Amino acid sequence: MSDRRRFVMGLAGALLSTTRLAPGTSRTSPHQLRVDAQRLQHTLEELSTFGRPVGGTFADGVNRVAYSDADLAGRQYVLGLLRAADLQPRIDAAGNIQGIRAGSVPSLKPIVFGSHIDSVPSGGNFDGDLGSLAAVEVVRTLKDHAIRTRHPLEVAIWSNEEGGPLGSEIAVDGPRASDLERAFNGTPMREGLARIGGDPARLDTARRAPGSIECYLELHIEQGGTLEKAGVPIGIVDGIVSIDEFAVEIRGVANHAGTTPMPERHNALLAAAKLIEAVQEEVTRTPGRQVGTVGQLTVMPNAPNVVPGLVKHTIELRDLSESTLTRLGAAIRERAAQIARETGTDITIRQVVHDPPALAAPEIQRQIEAAAASLDLRTMHLPSGAGHDAQFLAKIAPMGMIFVPSVGGISHSPREFTGWSDCANGANVLLQTILRVDRA
Amino acid sequence: MSDRRRFVMGLAGALLSTTRLAPGTSRTSPHQLRVDAQRLQHTLEELSTFGRPVGGTFADGVNRVAYSDADLAGRQYVLGLLRAADLQPRIDAAGNIQGIRAGSVPSLKPIVFGSHIDSVPSGGNFDGDLGSLAAVEVVRTLKDHAIRTRHPLEVAIWSNEEGGPLGSEIAVDGPRASDLERAFNGTPMREGLARIGGDPARLDTARRAPGSIECYLELHIEQGGTLEKAGVPIGIVDGIVSIDEFAVEIRGVANHAGTTPMPERHNALLAAAKLIEAVQEEVTRTPGRQVGTVGQLTVMPNAPNVVPGLVKHTIELRDLSESTLTRLGAAIRERAAQIARETGTDITIRQVVHDPPALAAPEIQRQIEAAAASLDLRTMHLPSGAGHDAQFLAKIAPMGMIFVPSVGGISHSPREFTGWSDCANGANVLLQTILRVDRA
Repeated sequence: MSDRRRFVMGLAGALLSTTRLAPGTSRTSPHQLRVDAQRLQHTLEELSTFGRPVGGTFADGVNRVAYSDADLAGRQYVLGLLRAADLQPRIDAAGNIQGIRAGSVPSLKPIVFGSHIDSVPSGGNFDGDLGSLAAVEVVRTLKDHAIRTRHPLEVAIWSNEEGGPLGSEIAVDGPRASDLERAFNGTPMREGLARIGGDPARLDTARRAPGSIECYLELHIEQGGTLEKAGVPIGIVDGIVSIDEFAVEIRGVANHAGTTPMPERHNALLAAAKLIEAVQEEVTRTPGRQVGTVGQLTVMPNAPNVVPGLVKHTIELRDLSESTLTRLGAAIRERAAQIARETGTDITIRQVVHDPPALAAPEIQRQIEAAAASLDLRTMHLPSGAGHDAQFLAKIAPMGMIFVPSVGGISHSPREFTGWSDCANGANVLLQTILRVDRA
Repeated sequence: MSDRRRFVMGLAGALLSTTRLAPGTSRTSPHQLRVDAQRLQHTLEELSTFGRPVGGTFADGVNRVAYSDADLAGRQYVLGLLRAADLQPRIDAAGNIQGIRAGSVPSLKPIVFGSHIDSVPSGGNFDGDLGSLAAVEVVRTLKDHAIRTRHPLEVAIWSNEEGGPLGSEIAVDGPRASDLERAFNGTPMREGLARIGGDPARLDTARRAPGSIECYLELHIEQGGTLEKAGVPIGIVDGIVSIDEFAVEIRGVANHAGTTPMPERHNALLAAAKLIEAVQEEVTRTPGRQVGTVGQLTVMPNAPNVVPGLVKHTIELRDLSESTLTRLGAAIRERAAQIARETGTDITIRQVVHDPPALAAPEIQRQIEAAAASLDLRTMHLPSGAGHDAQFLAKIAPMGMIFVPSVGGISHSPREFTGWSDCANGANVLLQTILRVDRA
């Protein structure tokens, strides 16, 4: 019905093309439905201007840390897109943006999909943004083709993913007082939430009850190099890995580097070096996707002419299987005890984080697989090594994540990039998965 | 001649007992001469009050950093001791204190002996102080017994050893403009020198010509645990070790610790760990007293969840033999190249320091040996792993150093301690060595 075609100017000056059809009528069958790849690219490019370094281009990435002016402006842009798609968006007490599109069967639970638009400092234009704007593009496509789903659809833009995740965590687990008072980007989280339209005094109202959501879907860039290396356009996430983090303290004896003979040293940094190698060896001893990292390390007193007396470092282990992590943790503790004896040092290892894994629902993984197959897109299964809003939603609803390749595996960097056709592929798989779940 | 005995109040309130005899007369033969062990302890305890932490005791160590008020007060105390010993002290342009006692043969060159009284921050009461006050005690003992040496004797208290060494370096090598402008303890060295009575504009006048000194002797605490462990009271220093220091930079790729599979990492800290172990292996591969230390290390970006992209660290090698250091440096570079290949990192190693060794003169070592034997004190030869004023004097005069045990090998710490009988033994060996050199 081209006679009803009109142009709407978006809040950020975007030229939004929408097509209105009589409810329930469409010229395209749902199987053939495709998102508007150019429109998706256009909105990603527009969103990138909120928080862009002064004088920079899209390739210079973005600073859109939660609660910042850039975050506020980016959220206004997305709210405008949702309104233009006839979704009357609301902001819940946790600052999450929700845009709901009614379904044809009132008794059904919503299919929720989305991501986040806040970034790390000096971040890229795809982490979170792609999943968020692909979700918007899906509802715009359905609107353009006047397709009404059976289930209500809900576009979810979770607040402060990079600094928490906070919005999705509150929606699932409720608020933690310690988080709310924590300083983030210069102000307590509580104030930041109020700034973006949340209501820190009524956070319980943001809770989503278990079983209240049909399923949660999230499209995201891989943030690793596995898909690109394999030449596969679509990743089906088995789950978000479990994380065990340890604080290690190695006590030796600081002493003069000139006057302390080698056999008489109690060198904390030598012990740390052996432990770093032991972590590497234990993690890579068996095949699998488990990873282990010593990422943070400090030496005291840290002078060229003093044998190090104290080293503190982290060990972080990640895998989908908690039992693999338990086994690795025990093996590393055993190696540490041996290294302490060898080097005459005292090593204490204290666990500071245990995040359980968040598994994707097998039936949702099958729907994503089928959706990709219908689009002639090859798939592979892989874990998500990074955390996502989806890990919280998995506690209350069947969860599925779709990954698309990250060029060079680079993320959390202005150099983060995903090819535009890969972006469109991901959005189409999201669209077709929603339609399959809706019909199932 | 007890009728001439009198008491002189020292500048710091010390009760100084001096005995005046007619020139050239003595009741004790030089071989039987011994220092006054109690007086030596007393002066060490008195000196310790200048820079003592407020409310502390001798065991709380000292803050007598060069050019500080405490350094000035400590220097006044030593000047008073020298005056009371009938030495008319002078301060040269480099801030070194010199107390000269005439010899009986005017044509002979001076025997110079001493050390320094400045300390590191939170230092101990023996490093430098023992050698300085033992030198003073030696001339007081000679005065008490009215023993006149053939050679002139010169007590040398070198300025700012811990921050340079500066005073002894200027006396031997002349001033380096860069050193003089360098900030030290809050002010440029130049200003510090003026504060203690030096003359930064006339530093050339502080130069000591090669061959102008009969020999240089320095008593010092070992600052290591070798003598204590061996149960030997006197160490004869073979020389002060050569130092090679390197700045190492390891470039990997910083990446997400969750999403970067183990085989795809370019982990700069893993490479550093392997290199730290390689340094240890290469240094301990052959017997000897060579030491190698990675004492300073920083990781970037240094976050628990990021694979380290950049590590900078030092490597410091010390040995008496420069060729051993050259061989070690080459072996470590070879290992680094191999580690860079293994870990997919880029390792650059830049030499930033090369201090040549300062060897003790064999004839002086023999005199120290004979002096100790005459006192029934066992000796062992060992290198000095730490730098001393003696390393500069060795360039222009036969040099010898006497070490006494450090309890627990601890130094540069308030816990630094040397038993009082070991202090007296060292001072007696210094005295007897001076007398032997004088007669030789």
